[in-house]
Amino acid sequence: MKNKLGKQTLQFPFLPRIVGSYSIVGEKEGKGPMAKWFDMILEEDTFGEKTWEKAESKMLKQAMLQALQKSGREKDEIDTVLSGDLINQIMSSSFMARDLSIPFLGIYGACSTMTESMIMGSMMIDGGYASNILVGASSHYCTAERQFRMPLEHGNHRPPSAQWTSTASGAMVLSADDKGDTAVKQGKNQPQGQKLREVYLSHATIGKILDTGIKDPNQMGAAMAPAAVDTIVRHLSDMERSPEFYDIILSGDLGMIGRDIALDLLSGRGINLNGIFNDCGAMMYDKKQDTHSGGSGCGCSASIFCSYVYDEMRTGKINNALLISTGALLSTISSQQGESIPGIAHAVAVTTKGVI
Amino acid sequence: MKNKLGKQTLQFPFLPRIVGSYSIVGEKEGKGPMAKWFDMILEEDTFGEKTWEKAESKMLKQAMLQALQKSGREKDEIDTVLSGDLINQIMSSSFMARDLSIPFLGIYGACSTMTESMIMGSMMIDGGYASNILVGASSHYCTAERQFRMPLEHGNHRPPSAQWTSTASGAMVLSADDKGDTAVKQGKNQPQGQKLREVYLSHATIGKILDTGIKDPNQMGAAMAPAAVDTIVRHLSDMERSPEFYDIILSGDLGMIGRDIALDLLSGRGINLNGIFNDCGAMMYDKKQDTHSGGSGCGCSASIFCSYVYDEMRTGKINNALLISTGALLSTISSQQGESIPGIAHAVAVTTKGVI
Repeated sequence: MKNKLGKQTLQFPFLPRIVGSYSIVGEKEGKGPMAKWFDMILEEDTFGEKTWEKAESKMLKQAMLQALQKSGREKDEIDTVLSGDLINQIMSSSFMARDLSIPFLGIYGACSTMTESMIMGSMMIDGGYASNILVGASSHYCTAERQFRMPLEHGNHRPPSAQWTSTASGAMVLSADDKGDTAVKQGKNQPQGQKLREVYLSHATIGKILDTGIKDPNQMGAAMAPAAVDTIVRHLSDMERSPEFYDIILSGDLGMIGRDIALDLLSGRGINLNGIFNDCGAMMYDKKQDTHSGGSGCGCSASIFCSYVYDEMRTGKINNALLISTGALLSTISSQQGESIPGIAHAVAVTTKGVI
Repeated sequence: MKNKLGKQTLQFPFLPRIVGSYSIVGEKEGKGPMAKWFDMILEEDTFGEKTWEKAESKMLKQAMLQALQKSGREKDEIDTVLSGDLINQIMSSSFMARDLSIPFLGIYGACSTMTESMIMGSMMIDGGYASNILVGASSHYCTAERQFRMPLEHGNHRPPSAQWTSTASGAMVLSADDKGDTAVKQGKNQPQGQKLREVYLSHATIGKILDTGIKDPNQMGAAMAPAAVDTIVRHLSDMERSPEFYDIILSGDLGMIGRDIALDLLSGRGINLNGIFNDCGAMMYDKKQDTHSGGSGCGCSASIFCSYVYDEMRTGKINNALLISTGALLSTISSQQGESIPGIAHAVAVTTKGVI
């Protein structure tokens, strides 16, 4: 198997490139510590639509179209859109893809969806099946709350371990050739005229479902941390890399509690990630924003990767990043039927270097 | 792009092989005209479980494990499982994959899920990212009815255009090498000692979402037929093939009404598929079984392809097949919010010949 390193780590020898990316977040996320990185912050979370579901689909469509514009490509140059979200039957993605009128492959990995879309998109580019692929993911606090928990009007209390589903979408164009992303050159965080680096997807580690028996949907970080740890350990082992190879190892979204559990579990296996490791859910909000354990939702790691990480790679402040999006594969029915919460985590290695 | 023929048609030059397949259906499906082809027919649709959701997940797991056994491979030789279903957050697939403990990529394409899994699995094998992949899809009448329509206890009337969600699962092993499927050699429909052919996936056409504005969820065939027609037309055009190249062109699941609409639309574009074209939904039940327009659900085309079509290809009665699984990308929320029903259709070309 020419492109397979370990059992679950794949290599992309032709280095699919990220040639445009875009992030949109809601009001609350736009008041958090990551605000300066996002391309667009909504003034109000309905985005001018009559329902939150339509608002989420519009956010995702906007992210896709803007990523496309930054890539310098035309819509008819895109071979396939890969996308997913948390809403039943991935409604936000389906209606986004209907409006774009580009061939569509729907995916679902709960909050791991962004890396799942990047893995599948990279295989399509690297394997020679496509020239340009749009990938993305989204979530919305209001659509997720009423589907998975309680109507917002109910105003129920949340325990300290609960996470806050981010209102956020992220999208990017993956491409077989390197033209693109002119818009970032005028990005608000980069000085004019600065030489920017190309960003490539080099490897991916597909996640295995781990279920440690946690049944409390307010303990998602704890439910997902073992899967994140398993994927990180397998990735480093398959790649024969020490953690220091990476400038940043970023999970998404374990939240504050899950991040600490993951660090503990890793240290128990002799792996010290202090100073390298962070979590998109833990980064998204200020403590004073009262989200308890931090952010979650497909859009959380999608929007942070498509803004902060990508921009820092373009300017060379980050040269090697490992993104591990984590998903809690529960549904309201599985919880009601007494099932525990299976966790999954997929990793992608992203680099600014042209050799692997 | 070496592996891309047209805008949406992909070529698999290394010819991923189907080395084992298995189908399970429910009681009602086991009394229909396709009964003799299925590997297993349930005596009752709970499959010994306390809930229908657990029953559906068990059916899918059984199909995966039995396909694996027929392939002659061990579980740890499987690189990834690709699977999806209709239940919110693809619960049947997630819990199946948790129990199998194999790396998992979840997908969602409504009733087009089986071909979506075959396309992604074929890219993983053909692109050199995997040696063996398990793909599959499932549906269950009782889980789908209560999620999408009414509690069964409600006993509501169904209009004549309604389709019946099949209780069915299908799974197969795709492989980079050709050893496998010894079990079929003792299959109930093949004479002992008969020389069997190898079955390959040669091409795939990824579907575009088409929405003609139909809002009635009891008119799914009509909502999906234009997408099926679009995919068939693009496939034949990209491949420069006439319909007669195929021994069978099989959609799934337009049902009786959708099949006739598709034939009409095709004939309006100068394409005559009479005698070649059929639909898995239209084939699944007898008229006297009172399912109105026929079967639907991810498991319908999955189980018919994994039994009848695959077995007829093994014995050489079918040498070239085009399977077009069709999906209606609605959710209960999208219907309640007045949205129309987007349709999608993905096609895979399957052949017994080693050259393409």
